[in-house]
Amino acid sequence: MNISKRIQSVPPSTIMELLTFAAKAKNQGKKVYHLNIGQPDIITPEGFLKAIREYKGEVLEYALSEGLPELIEAIRKYYTNYNLDFKNDEILITNGGSEALLFTMLTICDEGDNVLVPEPFYSNYFNFSKSVGVNINPITTLAENGFHLPGKEEIVSKINDKTKAILFSNPGNPTGVVYTKEELEMVADIAVEHNLWIIADEVYREFVYEGEYVSIGTLDKVKDRVIIVDSVSKRYSACGARIGSLASKNKPFMEGILKLCQARLSVPTLEQLGAIELYKTDNSYLKEVNEEYRQRRDVLYNELIKVPGVICKKPSGAFYIVAKLPVKDADHFTKWLLSDFDINGETVMPCPAEGFYQTPGLGVDEIRLAYVLNTKDLSKAATILKEGLETYLKLNK
Amino acid sequence: MNISKRIQSVPPSTIMELLTFAAKAKNQGKKVYHLNIGQPDIITPEGFLKAIREYKGEVLEYALSEGLPELIEAIRKYYTNYNLDFKNDEILITNGGSEALLFTMLTICDEGDNVLVPEPFYSNYFNFSKSVGVNINPITTLAENGFHLPGKEEIVSKINDKTKAILFSNPGNPTGVVYTKEELEMVADIAVEHNLWIIADEVYREFVYEGEYVSIGTLDKVKDRVIIVDSVSKRYSACGARIGSLASKNKPFMEGILKLCQARLSVPTLEQLGAIELYKTDNSYLKEVNEEYRQRRDVLYNELIKVPGVICKKPSGAFYIVAKLPVKDADHFTKWLLSDFDINGETVMPCPAEGFYQTPGLGVDEIRLAYVLNTKDLSKAATILKEGLETYLKLNK
Repeated sequence: MNISKRIQSVPPSTIMELLTFAAKAKNQGKKVYHLNIGQPDIITPEGFLKAIREYKGEVLEYALSEGLPELIEAIRKYYTNYNLDFKNDEILITNGGSEALLFTMLTICDEGDNVLVPEPFYSNYFNFSKSVGVNINPITTLAENGFHLPGKEEIVSKINDKTKAILFSNPGNPTGVVYTKEELEMVADIAVEHNLWIIADEVYREFVYEGEYVSIGTLDKVKDRVIIVDSVSKRYSACGARIGSLASKNKPFMEGILKLCQARLSVPTLEQLGAIELYKTDNSYLKEVNEEYRQRRDVLYNELIKVPGVICKKPSGAFYIVAKLPVKDADHFTKWLLSDFDINGETVMPCPAEGFYQTPGLGVDEIRLAYVLNTKDLSKAATILKEGLETYLKLNK
Repeated sequence: MNISKRIQSVPPSTIMELLTFAAKAKNQGKKVYHLNIGQPDIITPEGFLKAIREYKGEVLEYALSEGLPELIEAIRKYYTNYNLDFKNDEILITNGGSEALLFTMLTICDEGDNVLVPEPFYSNYFNFSKSVGVNINPITTLAENGFHLPGKEEIVSKINDKTKAILFSNPGNPTGVVYTKEELEMVADIAVEHNLWIIADEVYREFVYEGEYVSIGTLDKVKDRVIIVDSVSKRYSACGARIGSLASKNKPFMEGILKLCQARLSVPTLEQLGAIELYKTDNSYLKEVNEEYRQRRDVLYNELIKVPGVICKKPSGAFYIVAKLPVKDADHFTKWLLSDFDINGETVMPCPAEGFYQTPGLGVDEIRLAYVLNTKDLSKAATILKEGLETYLKLNK
């Protein structure tokens, strides 16, 4: 009566220990600016709740397993703005991007298979993979290069006969990297040459602050092998809705994953009704949100790089920055910020980045910062972080 | 770039072909009474929508991965009515009973392990198991015995060194069987003697029409190995809410499955707020619903057994009847009902029961009926079914 080996191989959440430090700081009367989590503070478009409030059904019935047709149609239409021409039967609604990822893993990988993932990566990629017996072959990217991809040879060297896919988020969580068209072309070439699926997690698609955004789904040569994972969580600041989706032109994949969707019956009916309205939100909303995040990024980034020894290229997307600090142990630095440092009773909590790496030893001197506070608070938080880092470096010379 | 073997091993849904027959019948102007699906027609308690309409948050945030504390507390309190004394940290909220089942499988079984399940069983047990590489060792139960469990020896003979659990629904879907205390004691003894987990799917707990209902969670000897899967879907006719839960006193299990809950972040916030109110519904609601279903069962059962050769013990629970018919092929009979039979332009659609069996050849002459229509419609549907069956038998003598 043991727990399965696969679940044993999933690491327990490490955030709890740090949150205990944060709680202690708060108990001591300190204000803590949280830059450690990806919960945006942006107001959810009111259409979401409005649609749900207007629901008149007397019996709250199952929705179709593939999702409400109106929501699928709204997403199909939305994708045309990005030159992605999916048909309605090439889109499925899921319980968040999370379910889309888990079901995709199950559908394309058997136990012992592996997927390539540029590291640092969203740590739940690891947890989902391990929980279904799939391994990740990490492709290490570096702060010095702004976490852009290494050359083709290095990526190809990670492929073996059990490799089924390349999975990445673009724009990237946790790095904020936005891949260039050339990088995506390289990934596409590799996928074609080695017959791999491409799982593109594009939930931060609107959060690009410089340059052109290209979805790998627009590249003709891989149209039959791309699986796009998507979600309303970040786009419309509706994390609690848990509405995600999958899009793929690969028929066997869609038929396979539909079996899982049918087994779990359906996605909440009301949340789907709300999500339909989200996709009707005026484009000005997304533009304003984009501008807001761009300003925040600049505030945080400009303060951070004032400290000599910090290695960080300005990221172009998502709402995260990963920075390499001139410290030995970012976890220790974070705990110190919470327990031993403050400016006028205020401190800041970054997220140590080691958990975003699979390769042992990497990321121990890095932090991830989520710029999910308004500019005024973020500006304070950035100053506290900068001065905290300077003080910490003096103390630990 | 193939689909995984595990997903290939999940059978595609067979209902679509039959629904095509139903659609044709409707196109020809026939009315079809659907007894084939478990979507209740009972009105959802209004507290659910009321709570959601009153939500005032501006940012729809992630909920805690374990579920909203108020909902967990509501479920803890609800369980005390059944002598189940769970603590709050022994309960987790899930995306429907479906996610609870899938995550439980992943947490207690590795690839190649198996679980015992009395057959006929809810067909998604099979689909979830196969999709994560777990096998089902079926324990065949018979219409002649009202689908009660066979003796201990027969069950034990299905156990091997890869057997991790016994999984059953009680009251049963698709059979409506309610296990006696003696049967549950036997299951508990087997679990203790062979060190097995017990996964008790008790989503139909309120739908018991005769005798006492006993949850296996109340038996002291197995308190450390019982996992209760639950859901608001049937209890409160809120299938579209997708709010399920898990309860277990086994700490390693709860720690293990929490990792999966954390990876998928959270369950929809609003649906949980609604569910809190569901659990506050006055008990008179559940009593009325129980009485309504009891009447329906009687209407359907009494008509069905008028046909000589039909084998069916009166089921005591859930809202299903499985009947063995004096036909060769219940699938053929169902299609015939839809395409070749009607009474005054009306016909009926049962669900062929073969899909609820894993053992090849079993169930081909059985149907499952869900009594999810009001008594007046159900009465008509029952008559049509009875007369249809009589006509079919004459034609196929």
